[in-house]
Order: sequence, then structure tokens, then C-alpha cells
Amino acid sequence: MSNFPPMKNDLLLKALRGEHVERPPVWMMRQAGRYLPEYMELRGKYSFFERVETPELAAEITMQPIDRFAPDAAIIFSDILVIPQALGLEVTLNEGEGPRLPNPIRTAKDALAISVPDVADRLHYVMEALTITRNRLDGNATLIGFAGAPWTILCYMIEGRGSKDFARVKQFCYTEPDAARHLLSVITDTTIAYLKAQIGAGAQVVQVFDSWAGLLGPEDFAEWAFPYLSKISESITEVPVILYPKGSWYALERLAYKTNASAIGIDWTVTPEYAREATRNGITLQGNFDPSKLMLPPDQIKSSVKRMIQRFGVQRYIANLGHGILPNIPVDNARAFIEAVKEYS
Amino acid sequence: MSNFPPMKNDLLLKALRGEHVERPPVWMMRQAGRYLPEYMELRGKYSFFERVETPELAAEITMQPIDRFAPDAAIIFSDILVIPQALGLEVTLNEGEGPRLPNPIRTAKDALAISVPDVADRLHYVMEALTITRNRLDGNATLIGFAGAPWTILCYMIEGRGSKDFARVKQFCYTEPDAARHLLSVITDTTIAYLKAQIGAGAQVVQVFDSWAGLLGPEDFAEWAFPYLSKISESITEVPVILYPKGSWYALERLAYKTNASAIGIDWTVTPEYAREATRNGITLQGNFDPSKLMLPPDQIKSSVKRMIQRFGVQRYIANLGHGILPNIPVDNARAFIEAVKEYS
Repeated sequence: MSNFPPMKNDLLLKALRGEHVERPPVWMMRQAGRYLPEYMELRGKYSFFERVETPELAAEITMQPIDRFAPDAAIIFSDILVIPQALGLEVTLNEGEGPRLPNPIRTAKDALAISVPDVADRLHYVMEALTITRNRLDGNATLIGFAGAPWTILCYMIEGRGSKDFARVKQFCYTEPDAARHLLSVITDTTIAYLKAQIGAGAQVVQVFDSWAGLLGPEDFAEWAFPYLSKISESITEVPVILYPKGSWYALERLAYKTNASAIGIDWTVTPEYAREATRNGITLQGNFDPSKLMLPPDQIKSSVKRMIQRFGVQRYIANLGHGILPNIPVDNARAFIEAVKEYS
Repeated sequence: MSNFPPMKNDLLLKALRGEHVERPPVWMMRQAGRYLPEYMELRGKYSFFERVETPELAAEITMQPIDRFAPDAAIIFSDILVIPQALGLEVTLNEGEGPRLPNPIRTAKDALAISVPDVADRLHYVMEALTITRNRLDGNATLIGFAGAPWTILCYMIEGRGSKDFARVKQFCYTEPDAARHLLSVITDTTIAYLKAQIGAGAQVVQVFDSWAGLLGPEDFAEWAFPYLSKISESITEVPVILYPKGSWYALERLAYKTNASAIGIDWTVTPEYAREATRNGITLQGNFDPSKLMLPPDQIKSSVKRMIQRFGVQRYIANLGHGILPNIPVDNARAFIEAVKEYS
């Protein structure tokens, strides 16, 4: 893989290594998405699974925000639910509704029957999309691969869909702990193999999304989320790992010091000051602009972003949203976010 | 109202006043609900609005968990969306689906047209239910009235329903701040009048539910939630006020010291140690058992509750769940929760 184009912009990699930078790198979670008219055009022509499973399309979608805004990183267009698919579960999607697993796991027997697949084979299209994208980026932005965290994937595999309280997955953990641990281990091992395949195909950084971590109290996070995040970060030694445990403000110190992560992503309920103190200034932080604030007029977005950077500091910081960009954000507002970071001095 | 039965059990009031108690008082949020077969029986006979608007039925439902478990408090059976109703918005409910406001507020003009109603008149049935219940309790448990917090009510009035990200209400606040503030002020004044009417009718404590506070980052909480919670707590001088800002762990100190609240309710993402430290041991805390943990076997519930009390301490503490009880909890598990507190020594 050494024949990829040389890097002209390694700002993200520098920030992840803790090296000095002139300004923070910037990208946006879900930056290739419904707020972009060019994405909506492809969405009108191709189904969700066609978009995800056709490498050329996934690469094109990944490049859309790069071509528009020139952020410092591209995150491959895909979905965290490819892992449940690779594990043999059906995933359906009605556009605008969010994904569903029509036959979720509900018994210990079903859980124990799940085993680690040949993920690089099953999800080959993701790897192909990464290789195409890495070449197309031509070194102008760092390519990020990703996966869902085991806890979050477990939530989907047992609930079958997003939920208000995720009572079912918690009930499963409390009443069938061995089966739950088996599933989490299988998801973890599958995810490690998947991320390594992504790296082999061109991903230069990987991010692990624990979107539902915040449903867990601190003790449950320690039991059902942390060990698997930790194992993933310890196993991925090839490239920097970003852990993004949405809502788990209480675990920041532990994630910073008891895992091998290069950065921790935080959401907007955490102040920069709290996050820096909790992580004792010892790790790169990523975040945490409230995606709803992209509704503000561009000049107010710019002043808010400037203030955010001042509070986090320029070093060991990756400017980003605190969660994915919303579908109804004006393109100029997204641009204002990226520009505000690039103009920072 | 001085002719209510004398109090035989004032444990909750003592804990709220910071007085010495032998064990913590206990009640459960949403303790009159779908996990009780006797509630399901009434639910089969009467619609949601019949149950809420018929004082005799609301009182009967309120008493159901009291008759079963003898907790230290009864919370009146009602709904936070009676306030949007009193403000002139239609509220519908399909059982099992959650409430909807089919014609939510979407423009500044609509928002500015909303004014404070004669809430004691519009919601007279709640007051009647409170008076019946207070007499029926016969002093064996403290009667709690409640309302939704202005921010949470605003969320419903603008979104029309629960939402994953509440982007619409935030957009409204950012783009129509004056109209949003007008609505929040009207909701606040209406809520104050409503809670005072509840107190006049027999409520001995009031709780304000800010179920969606945690959607806000600290600065937005300070702007869109805190001032209204503070005004309500300052205005209710007749009885103790419990503020329950779900998810707003970052605001505990401010809520404890910059409002007139007698207690702060916390959810299960906050450890007892964090909550005590953040509030500098200066206020009564209520919570915070993860409702999903009532899925554990009763003996494990009891040991978890015991540990929770040890960590919070017996004084200035109200044992409760961290959010409402779930519909599928076995009755014996709910009983184990209450019993574990009552047996604590």
C-alpha cells in the first residue's frame, strides 16, 4: 500500500500524534450526507445499500464534501450496521426512517450461535471504496475508516432499531450476561479484523463510534462498553484510533489513560474545560460543536467556532461537530464551520 | 386546606428539609403505570384522557402503587402535556406510542400569540384529583404534584413529539430567540400558577421534570433552561420543590446553589460521589437507580439498592429511580426496590 499518493496535508495525523500545528485540523462527522444537494441527487438514483455497497459510489460520496469544503479529513461513506450484516443479520432501511434489523437477536441461543465471519471478504466493497478514495484524495486530506463500537452494535442487534431507553439490550445484558459477553466479544474481534482490513486498503486513521454509550451509567459502561473499546484500541497499532463515546462524559479520564486511543471525541454537553481537566491535558480531543448550532447565521457560526478553538486550544485538538451534521443544514453554514477553523490564527 | 388528615409519615418532607432520618424516603418515578396489572385493567376500560381528566380515576391510579408497596410518597397521576393543552394546543395519544401534538408551533407569529391561560380553571380536574388523593392517603405518604419544565414543554410544543435530536426546537431558539423566550416565559408563568393551584389542592411537594435538559450543552442550558427552572423554584415558596434535569450533570452545582430547590433529581449516568461533590453535600439528592436494572432478579436489586444508599448516604437523600419505571418490569421487582430501602438500616 506504499504506492498511495504522498501526503500534502498531514494536519490531522500531526494533531493525533500530539505534534505542533499552526491551526487545528477540521472535519465534520457525517460530512457526506443529506445536507448536500449532490448527495441528494445520488440518493434519488441509488438505494442506500447501492450507495454503500458500490465502491465507486461510496468513494464519490466521500469526496463530495472534500471537493466543496477541503476539510483536513475524509471519512469513508458507509454505515456501522455493515457489521451486523457481516454477522448474518438482515438490515433494512426506509429512507428517512433510520435502519432496522427486522430479526434482532432475542435469545441466548441465537446470541451464542453468532461467530466471527471473514469480514474482509463479506465487506470487500468498503475496502475497495477506501482504496479508490485514498488515491482520489491525492494526499490533500487524511482518510478515516470507522466502525461502530461493540456496545452500540449490540444495541442494534438486540433492539433491532434505535430506542428511547434501550431497555431490551440492558435486560439482555442483565439476564443473559454470558450470551451478551459472547456477542460483544464476537463483535469486537470482527471489528478489529474489519478495521485492520480498512487500514490495509488505505484508511490512515480509524474512528470507533459508541453512539449509545451514554445510555449506560458509569459502572455499566465499565462492564459492557469499556473493555471492548479498550481491546480494539490495543489491537489497532497500525494507525491512530479515535474513540467517540457519545454521552459518556464520566469515562473521559479512563478512555484517555487506560486505552491506546490517540484521541477522544466528545459531544457538546462536555465543556472544553471539563474535557481538558478530565483528561489532564494528556490526549488529543475532538469535537464538540452542537450540530444544531449550524442553524445559526454563518457569522455567528464563525464566532462560536473561534471561541470553541480558544477554549480547547490549538494543540492536541481536532475541530469537529459533537455529533453528525443534520440533514437540513444550509451548505453555506457547513462551509462557515470549516472555514472558521481554517481561518483561525 | 388545613383539614387534611394529619401526617403519620413525613419522611420525605424531613429529607427535603435536611432533617435527620433513620432511613431514606423512597418512591419511584412513574410508579402508577403500565407495569401494574391493576393499571392495565383501567387502561383497558378508559382512554388516556379519561384517566387523566377524571379525578376519581386519577386518584385511584395514584393510589395503586401506594396500596401495593406503601412507598413514602405518591405522585399524582397526570401528564406534563396538560400545560400545552391549557395553552391551547391539541394533544393526542395512541396508547403505546407516546403523545403527539399534531399542530405544533412552527412560526414566531404562532409563538407570540400564546398567552397565559386561567390554568386552575382549565386543569381543575388535576386539582380535584389531588384533593381526593390527599384525603385518601390519610397521612401515610406525602403527596407530590408536578409539571414539566419550560424547556421540555417547549420541546414538545415545537417538535410535536419526542425526537432524536430536537433539532427543530433548537433551530427555533437560535433563529427566533425572542419568540422562544416569549413562549418559555408564558410556559413558566403558567406552570407557576399551575403548581400553586396544585399546592392549594393538597400537593405537599412539587417536582419539575426537565426530561430533555440533557439535549442542551452547558451554555444553552444556562440560556434556555436554567432561568425558567430558577424562576419556578423562587416562586414556589409554599412547599419544597424538586428539580429533575435529566442529563444535565454539568449543572448540578448551579441548580443546588443558584435556585431555591429543596432537592435535585439525578439520573444514573451520575455517580453518587460526583453528585455529592458537585453539590458540595449541600442539598438533598434524589435518584438514581437505572430503571433497566429492575430487570435484575429481586435479590440483586436489593443488594444494588443497598449499595446505592451506602454511596449516597442516608441523610439528605431520597431513594428513587433515575427515570420512570419501564412498562415490562415484574411487580415483584418493583416491590424489591421499595422494600430494600424500607429495610435499610
